Amino acid sequence: MKKTRGGGDEAGRFAYEGLDRVIHEKARLGVLTSLVAHPKGLLFGDLKQLCGLTDGNLSRHLQILQEAHLVETVKTFESNRPQTTCRITAEGRKQFLDYLTVLEQVVRDAAAATRSEEASSSPLGLAST
Amino acid sequence: MKKTRGGGDEAGRFAYEGLDRVIHEKARLGVLTSLVAHPKGLLFGDLKQLCGLTDGNLSRHLQILQEAHLVETVKTFESNRPQTTCRITAEGRKQFLDYLTVLEQVVRDAAAATRSEEASSSPLGLAST
Repeated sequence: MKKTRGGGDEAGRFAYEGLDRVIHEKARLGVLTSLVAHPKGLLFGDLKQLCGLTDGNLSRHLQILQEAHLVETVKTFESNRPQTTCRITAEGRKQFLDYLTVLEQVVRDAAAATRSEEASSSPLGLAST
Repeated sequence: MKKTRGGGDEAGRFAYEGLDRVIHEKARLGVLTSLVAHPKGLLFGDLKQLCGLTDGNLSRHLQILQEAHLVETVKTFESNRPQTTCRITAEGRKQFLDYLTVLEQVVRDAAAATRSEEASSSPLGLAST
């Protein structure tokens, strides 16, 4: 059993500071994963389909991602019809990769935790005084 | 390049419906990972340390997790001092494992996406008409 009491070396072990809330939100996580997979950009409508979002929801999340400089949108015309292409920025890619490192740690911790369950023996997990 | 346009077979590919918002929130993800690692329970103070949370924040998140029946708290006395022990429920463990399966998929998708970047060649990622 690892020592955790009294702010010891395990303090903050599961704080996951690197899980940036702008990226971690479920819909935005899907948007960024889609855009990382398509670095040259995705049309708004294609991104909407991939992420299973409504127009309004995708617009709202794109705005938050743009304000954080993680994503950029470019308006173009195709056969006289306006189109919006969404792209991840270099900064967005960097921050997403940093986030991914923490997310991989979460998965490793959680997988290890579920495996170690049967090995636990202390009555309340930790000493209580 | 995979087909994504027009609600084809890739629609919702990055929707990640299984990322339950009750579990996915950053602080609660830390709380649940801690509790899965200590199935016999953790004292409130130890859990607070592990997750790097304040009393107020941990209380608020525990209440949400209790209302979702994922976590239970037990009040006991130790040397006449009241103590709160937090434990994950059987239902909480089950839902956390389901969540973890989706989270692992996110990590796989994102890792694959970052690797496939250089292979992408279509000017805007997808056809536009």
